[in-house]
This record gives sequence, C-alpha cells and structure tokens, in this order.
Amino acid sequence: MPLELNHGDAGFEAAFTGLLAAKRETQEDVQNAVAAILADVRARGDAALLDYTARFDRVTLTVETMRVTADEIDRALASIEPGLLDALKLAAERIEDFHRRQTPDALSYTDAAGVRLGARWTAVNSVGLYVPGGTAAYPSSVLMNALPAKVAGVERVTMVVPTPDGKLNPLVLAAARIAGVHEIYRIGGAQAVGALAYGTETIRPVDKIVGPGNAYVAAAKRHVFGTVGIDMIAGPSEILVVADGANDPAWIAADLLSQAEHDTSAQSILITDDAAFAEAVKTAVDGHLKTLPRAEIAGASWRDHGAVIVVSDLDEAVPLVDRLAPEHLELAVADPDALAARIRNAGAIFLGRHTPEAIGDYIAGPNHVLPTARSARFSSGLNLLDFMKRTTLVGCDPGSLAAIGPAAVALAEAEGLGAHALSVSIRLNGAPR
Amino acid sequence: MPLELNHGDAGFEAAFTGLLAAKRETQEDVQNAVAAILADVRARGDAALLDYTARFDRVTLTVETMRVTADEIDRALASIEPGLLDALKLAAERIEDFHRRQTPDALSYTDAAGVRLGARWTAVNSVGLYVPGGTAAYPSSVLMNALPAKVAGVERVTMVVPTPDGKLNPLVLAAARIAGVHEIYRIGGAQAVGALAYGTETIRPVDKIVGPGNAYVAAAKRHVFGTVGIDMIAGPSEILVVADGANDPAWIAADLLSQAEHDTSAQSILITDDAAFAEAVKTAVDGHLKTLPRAEIAGASWRDHGAVIVVSDLDEAVPLVDRLAPEHLELAVADPDALAARIRNAGAIFLGRHTPEAIGDYIAGPNHVLPTARSARFSSGLNLLDFMKRTTLVGCDPGSLAAIGPAAVALAEAEGLGAHALSVSIRLNGAPR
Repeated sequence: MPLELNHGDAGFEAAFTGLLAAKRETQEDVQNAVAAILADVRARGDAALLDYTARFDRVTLTVETMRVTADEIDRALASIEPGLLDALKLAAERIEDFHRRQTPDALSYTDAAGVRLGARWTAVNSVGLYVPGGTAAYPSSVLMNALPAKVAGVERVTMVVPTPDGKLNPLVLAAARIAGVHEIYRIGGAQAVGALAYGTETIRPVDKIVGPGNAYVAAAKRHVFGTVGIDMIAGPSEILVVADGANDPAWIAADLLSQAEHDTSAQSILITDDAAFAEAVKTAVDGHLKTLPRAEIAGASWRDHGAVIVVSDLDEAVPLVDRLAPEHLELAVADPDALAARIRNAGAIFLGRHTPEAIGDYIAGPNHVLPTARSARFSSGLNLLDFMKRTTLVGCDPGSLAAIGPAAVALAEAEGLGAHALSVSIRLNGAPR
Repeated sequence: MPLELNHGDAGFEAAFTGLLAAKRETQEDVQNAVAAILADVRARGDAALLDYTARFDRVTLTVETMRVTADEIDRALASIEPGLLDALKLAAERIEDFHRRQTPDALSYTDAAGVRLGARWTAVNSVGLYVPGGTAAYPSSVLMNALPAKVAGVERVTMVVPTPDGKLNPLVLAAARIAGVHEIYRIGGAQAVGALAYGTETIRPVDKIVGPGNAYVAAAKRHVFGTVGIDMIAGPSEILVVADGANDPAWIAADLLSQAEHDTSAQSILITDDAAFAEAVKTAVDGHLKTLPRAEIAGASWRDHGAVIVVSDLDEAVPLVDRLAPEHLELAVADPDALAARIRNAGAIFLGRHTPEAIGDYIAGPNHVLPTARSARFSSGLNLLDFMKRTTLVGCDPGSLAAIGPAAVALAEAEGLGAHALSVSIRLNGAPR
C-alpha cells in the first residue's frame, strides 16, 4: 500500500518530512572497480576496451568491428515498421524545434564609461553520448540527448552503446541516424566512459559526456568529471500529480503507473483535495496492474514509494509541491495555468487533464532528461545550453581604462595583490604606445 | 625559468601536449576527515559547528555570537576609507548591470498541432556563499558571487566566513552589505558547508552553495552535491596572453604576473609571433619581480608553470588557444576582435592592449569566477543562470493530444512501457469528462 497522508492530521509534517528525506536509491559501491577500469583504458587504450567488452558484454570485437558501420545503420532503418519510423521522425522534428527556440542571444554593448562589454555562446566541440544496452536501450533517450547537441552545433557526437551477447536495438540505431550522431561504437560500461574521456587509438576523446547509465557508468562519469564535462547524474524517475475530483480516476492511475513502471525505485505521488477521488484512483491503480506488462515493477514502486496526500484545498498543495520539487508535475485541475504560476520547483509541468506526462517523454518537444531527487530546487532539465558555453568579452581603450581603472587599482591594493594593481596602473601612468 | 616552446620546432607537439596534461594541483586527501565533520554537523548541529570553530579557527562562539550583527556591519562600513568604499560601490554597480543584462526570456507558444509549449526561469530560493577567511578574504569575490544571486531574485543569501583568531576583514562585510547578503555567520571549513547543506538549529539549509575555498571546503562541496547544488570547483588561476611585438613588454609582463601572484600553482602563458619581444617580456618579468609584494609566489609560479610560446604567425595561435581553453585570454594585438571571433574555448576574453585582465577581476562587470584547467571547453563562468533554474511546460487539449498522442503510444509500446502507452491511449479512446 502506498503511504497515505492527510494534510490536516497532527502527524502530517513529520510524515511529509520523512517522505522528503527517504532514500530510494541503493548505493552500490563500485568506485574501486570503476577506477581500475578507467586507469586500464587510459593506459592500454583499445586493447583494454576490447578485453572488458569480451568479459562484460560477452562479445568479441576487433578494432575494425568496434564501430557500427553506415551499412548496419541503413539495414536497421530499413527493418523498422514505417509507422514506427514516422513516430520517431515526428518526435525528432518536435524535439529539434523546441530546442532550437532556446538559442541564446549574444550580448554586445558599449557602456557609459566607453567600455565594450559582451558575452557570446559557442557550441561544445565534441560530445559523447552514452546509451544503455539491453532492455533499457531507449530510442527516445537517444533523441533527447543527441538532438540538443545537433541544434547547438556540436561538430562531433560520438555514441557508445553496449551490445550484450551481440544484441543491438535497431530503433536505437535509427534514432541515432535521425538525430545526426556522427560515430557509434558498440561498447559500454565504465570502459566506454573511459574511452570517451581519455581517447584510445580508435576513439577520439570528447569534451563532454551525457546520457544515462547504470551504477558503473554513473561512477565513471563522476570520476572523469573535470577531464570532461558531464550532465547530471539522474536518479530514479518521479511523478507528482495534483488532481481535483473532476478527473477520471483511471486516467490519473495510468499516469502514476507510467513512472512507477520504470523502476521499483521510482516514485509516484498524488495530491488531491478529494478523499473519495483518492480512493477511486487507488482502486484504478490496482485494476490497471492486473493487465500491464510491467505490473510487477510498477506495483512494487507504488507499494514501496507511492504516496497519496489529501489536502482540504488545492492551495495547500503549492508549498508541498515546492518542497517535493518533482521531476514531473501534472496539474490535472480546472485552471492549471494559475496553479503553475504559483509553483517554483519542478523539472517539467504538464498542464491540464489532457496532458499525460508520457506525452513529454516522447513527443511534446521539451527534454525528458530532468532533475530528480528534489534537485529541481537548483537545477534544470537537459537543454541547448548544456551543449554550449559562454565567453565574456571586455574591451577598454585608454579613455575607458582611465575612467574605471583607478577603482580597480584601489581594490587590488586593498586585497594586497600588487601585480594586479600594477597591470592597470602601468597603463594609466606609462606612455601608451 | 618558464618553459620555452617554438611552434616550428620538431618537438613542439609533444612538449605542448605535455603542457596541456601537466597537473598543477596538489591533491590533498581530506575526504575522510571531511566526511566525518559533515556527519557530525548533521547529527549535532550548532554544537558541532561551535566545537569545530573553536578547534580550527581558535574562536569561542555561542549560538548568539555566531551571526554577524547589523551593528558590526555598520561599523565595518564606517571604518573604510571613502575612496575605497566608492571603488567597491562602482564595482558592484557595474557587476550588477552586466548580470542584469543576462536575464533570460521565458518561452511560450502554441505550435501547429495546437500544443501549448513553454519554458520559464525562476530563481533558486536560497543560496549559501562561502567566503574564505584570513588573507584570502577578497571583497571582490563576495561581489562576484552574491550580486548574480541578488539580480536573479534569490530570496535568501546566507554568507559564511571563518574568522581565524577572531579576525574578520571589514571590506568583506562591506561588500556583503553592498551586495545584499541577508545573513552572515562567522564559520568556515567543511563544518560551514555542512551547516549550509543540512541546516542546524540556527542556520537554515540552503538550496545551492557557491564560492571558493580550500581543499576541505572543496571536498565538502563535492560531498554535499545532490543534497544541494554547487558551483564549479575552481582550480588554480590561469592567464594566456597572445601579444604581438608592438606591445610594451612591461605591460604584458605585469599581466602575466597578475595571475602568477595568486598562487604558486597558477599558470601564465605568453604566445607571441616576435621572439625578441618574448625575450623583452621575460626581462620585464624579472624586473617587476624585484619590487612586487608577492614576488615570491609570483616568481615560483612563473618559474614552475609559466610558458612562452613563439609562433611564426598569430594564425598559428588560434588552435593552441582552443586546446589550452584558458580561464583568462588577453588579445594584445592590432585587431583583437578578428582574432577573438576565431577562438572557441576561453572563459573570458580581454580585447586589445589597454584591457589588462585585472580590470575584469574587479570592475569591468562580467564575472571573475571562470572555468579553469581547460574546462572552458565545456563550461562557462559564473552567471545569472547559475542562480536560476528552468521549468518546461506542456499543455494539450483533446484535439492536440489526438494529433500527437498516437506517435507517443507507438514509441512507448516499442520501448515496452505499457503504462506510458496506456496513459495516452486511455485519453484518446476513453470518454473525456
């Protein structure tokens, strides 16, 4: 049974605080194993990569067969049912369009003192995209990670995907082709992260690594951070649905289960102002669980981490939402825009009764890589800016340096930094050339 | 003597690669000590904080005296020489103005399918600002870290600054007042980071922690990352100056030393197309070192990590700059804008002969917290967006869900995620209410 809380109860605050603090991730201690693999890939390059792939993925590759060929990708594309390929292309178009609208403006102006000031954005030069193999090989994830890089103008997107026992999902290759990935290697695990970070004889190093992975991949990304950039380390998925009693309980139950089915550590929470509706949703959840293919996973998540919170008024939901800072927030209420405007912390908001969260996982356009574990308090979903960086620009001439330089000299001297002061004062006092 | 490289020499590539790979930071292993302090602060709150402060800073505080009072800040402000206070205020105005111009636009539109799409930015609710104590207590650093938070609209900025032996720099308090800091506590080290991340009876927890610190502070920030957001972990400072022979060697020598004086691990590099000018700069460095107050530090940095690279043409500098991806890049050439336009990787660029890097440390307006250790390949300097986060918005009605929903169902089914598919199809097929 999911946790049941009533906002009016005396024990509510303690129970809610407990819900916020509950750890859902099992921490596997893979640090040492990962450090050894990374060091070995750094030292031995391709040879280490092929050894680990043989050992962990049970696939014997060579330097020649490590890379997926254009022919293989062509064949994968040809094997896909046309309706599904169209769906993938529609998703790609919509994701690309949404991310293109995020293109940041450059800044350039001359201020009253005559100082030229500015900032410009440039694409990261090269990006590595990790794609999990086996059952977790999701083409939607390829689109969501690769398309923002494409829109940003990243010159080289290198994808790695393990092929345990030689299996490779053709949809993943199709998504990579559609999303403009430049190179694909059939490697995975910490060894693939090492190859992307340090480079091997065959694989050129990248500047930034993105994409989801298991505990080994996450630990490897943490380890190489600094040598390369990384995206966030994502935790188990979450959904928070705020719903009034006018919804169809079966719809809301399906939404809660759509995140629960990801992982037994996923979390689905319902906040409603209607206790009878809450009961109806729980009944509907049990009903859906009788037929869903991933009922075992979804049921365990709902039982162990699910929660139903009854409030007397939806106004009471606002501070609870901000404290939960959910990855996904559905507002299945009469006026979702008014409620959304009052909420600060959420990765993505789904407005109204006809916007199930799953529409955002695949097709809406915004990224589905979103901050988990309450990190929407301080971070954002994956977006175009994650594939760009910003350089600021300052230009003085003798006049503008004379206007603002003395203040810099005063501050540098107050901080005891004599060379800082000298580098300004020598230009103010010395004969310009 | 600094490293000397000539781009035309046979051994150049190997030597330059060695320069890129050279580690300048001494890694102190403080992980275990830091983990113990953090756990203790989490468990014992204020009591632990006061104990560690007594032990490490040799200051006996109480819950009452831990916080710096408004009276103390008033007195600090009054004690500062008016010219210096004016310099601080001018810096604050200029920094605030530059950061305000970075304010991101919200996105909101309805696409051809009738789907409402958008993204909005909101301020992080609360931020903790770490300020080092003792000699490294720089008021400019307070301004650079606190003002973007103020401009973003952060509701609560909590500053911590250790006061070893009771010493507190009045300029730091003045800068905090000017920058709109809300609370100041005289604590530091890993214990202060723990207090900001977990909260104590007296100090409320924050959502994100920014600001520089020693190895303990850096390790503590890494440790609490996830519980709260953190800014980058900055390495030793760097400057790369690209200069032709028409510069005054004494000016360029001062610029190189302005970063070298920060730290013996700092790095200053000159690239020039004029070998005689390179020699003149080296001579001028030696001249300045005879009089500068921090000559010992600056001299050690220049000797151990400095480099002079002679190219036959400044065009050859472009790929070298991008590979070095410097924190600070000065372009002391005739047409700095043309050269800047060709460079991709740099934290901040200083244009022309009259723009010493130090002007950007204090007064120009852009942030002086910039990516070090080649991380300008994939990251940006501190900016307004570091104190904000982005929420995406999607809204469908029955018509737009009917338009894009079937593709989502097809993709969800292809990924084997039945509840995802159900949450869409139930709305397409079921009777809407």
